[in-house]
Amino acid sequence: MYGGIDLGGTKIQAAIVDDEHSVLGAARRATPTTGGPSDVAAEMEIALRDAAKAAAVQWVDGNPTLEGVGVGSPGTIEAGNVTSARNLPDWEGSFPLASTLERGLGCRVVVGNDVQVATDAEFKLGAGRPYSSLLGVFWGTGVGGGLILDGKPWTGRGGAGEIGHVVVVLDGARCTCGRRGCMEAYAGRASMEAHVRHLHEERDRKTDLFKLMKQHDHARLTSGIWARALARADKLAIQTLDRAVAALGAGIASVVNVLDVEAVIIGGGLGIRLGHPYAERITEAMQPHLFADSRPPRVHVAALGDLGGAIGAALLVRADA
Amino acid sequence: MYGGIDLGGTKIQAAIVDDEHSVLGAARRATPTTGGPSDVAAEMEIALRDAAKAAAVQWVDGNPTLEGVGVGSPGTIEAGNVTSARNLPDWEGSFPLASTLERGLGCRVVVGNDVQVATDAEFKLGAGRPYSSLLGVFWGTGVGGGLILDGKPWTGRGGAGEIGHVVVVLDGARCTCGRRGCMEAYAGRASMEAHVRHLHEERDRKTDLFKLMKQHDHARLTSGIWARALARADKLAIQTLDRAVAALGAGIASVVNVLDVEAVIIGGGLGIRLGHPYAERITEAMQPHLFADSRPPRVHVAALGDLGGAIGAALLVRADA
Repeated sequence: MYGGIDLGGTKIQAAIVDDEHSVLGAARRATPTTGGPSDVAAEMEIALRDAAKAAAVQWVDGNPTLEGVGVGSPGTIEAGNVTSARNLPDWEGSFPLASTLERGLGCRVVVGNDVQVATDAEFKLGAGRPYSSLLGVFWGTGVGGGLILDGKPWTGRGGAGEIGHVVVVLDGARCTCGRRGCMEAYAGRASMEAHVRHLHEERDRKTDLFKLMKQHDHARLTSGIWARALARADKLAIQTLDRAVAALGAGIASVVNVLDVEAVIIGGGLGIRLGHPYAERITEAMQPHLFADSRPPRVHVAALGDLGGAIGAALLVRADA
Repeated sequence: MYGGIDLGGTKIQAAIVDDEHSVLGAARRATPTTGGPSDVAAEMEIALRDAAKAAAVQWVDGNPTLEGVGVGSPGTIEAGNVTSARNLPDWEGSFPLASTLERGLGCRVVVGNDVQVATDAEFKLGAGRPYSSLLGVFWGTGVGGGLILDGKPWTGRGGAGEIGHVVVVLDGARCTCGRRGCMEAYAGRASMEAHVRHLHEERDRKTDLFKLMKQHDHARLTSGIWARALARADKLAIQTLDRAVAALGAGIASVVNVLDVEAVIIGGGLGIRLGHPYAERITEAMQPHLFADSRPPRVHVAALGDLGGAIGAALLVRADA
């Protein structure tokens, strides 16, 4: 058995999988919004222990009966250390995530980039299996991108895939990264929340989003809250998602114009939660911007769903064996 | 000896090179603005014959003492046929360019994509030699892009590299391709000419651009005319180029954010003519949009200059041998 942890800006998803990538147990925790890296690591440990319990993993002399635990993390990863993990609390410097978790869990821990891990999982096990080139778009707190070109991950000089920071409006909206006009400034959940909060609090725009957030005892507008607001035909939620879809369409089409990949896989918290109807809307929003518009790439929702990141993280342990 | 012809939207550049890629003779013709593909082919033949004359190539029984002639052409290339060559007169359908030129010139002709040919030439012989990954940006009538990833051309499903049609302003200016907000709608010479013509004729904006065009007996605002207007501090020319540089900065940085290549090579008629000062301006315009802004890619002007496309086209004959 292998453990996998997907560390997201909103939630921590852990899973225990077997040799055939079947999920034997899973658990989820909210990502701490305050504190620092060690608080995040503590929540990750709890999530993994909960998943292990669901999978009936035994602990013998403080060591679990796992081959190891893989982690998909945002930020720059080097030898198990994670630096500049945006969207995580107070994580600008470097933190030894692998060794901290190894001490806590009592087994080997391998850390990789969250987006590349999820892209590889979709390529090897999910919606990307039929293709040799694809773009993974992970639409959540931020918008991450992963590339498979000619059957292999393309990571450039180590920093490729930042599709969230493709410019879709020169001098446009301020992004959480500090720049202007990035796709993520319109489509990232953190930006979308700031946008509706501004319109609600400063411009008196009506919305049920924050009421729903409180009712469900969340500190943030999660994907589930957005989905509920859409189901209620909340006008501000609909308009904000329309704006996000337009930005995603332009940004993804731009990348397709340059790379001409066979397929686009839409994952991430919002991508999975909003599912096929929104993948279709993104496909339609791409169309007017595609240069080779007679043969658009195939667009799929990530087939491994919400657990794709954790399953992909577990793959890291095997790749590292 | 090898012949090479670079078929551009504004000019046809021919060259004769030896085994070491030294240019033995070169000639240039204006690309016809009216007529059709066969008129363009006729001008290409004249350009190649002029270059051959300068290189003292002999014709024996109607066949030149050349290993062959390579052609870099816009449009979709299949088995020597060229389809949908934008920026060329009346060339929406398919035209048998290779066989037409073979009949006219009396030697073997190999046709490839103009931008990929020029990118390969810079990678193998020019400014791209130190790198294993690069983005070629050919700034001329349109804006084309070529990719080298992991030491090899990346062409996707055959249509990669359309960096001119990366969206930099959602719902922005109308592009010559019919779409909105493309980088080329701001930075392509054809779009720039339409933009200043509109402001000059409809909005009474003063400029010497069209006067210079007539003085130099051109039918279009060539790169040389733009350079002359800049040298005179023509306000409208300066503003239009500022707008082009801003679009190039955002569009190129977007692609770098996704691919994280080592280097960007700026070529094309305008890129070469405006040279290093403008490559530096583009570098500065990229900087605020780069996600990994502490390690931007190197930016170079195409080292093979104006003849790069023709030299690269000649390489096709050797690759094909």
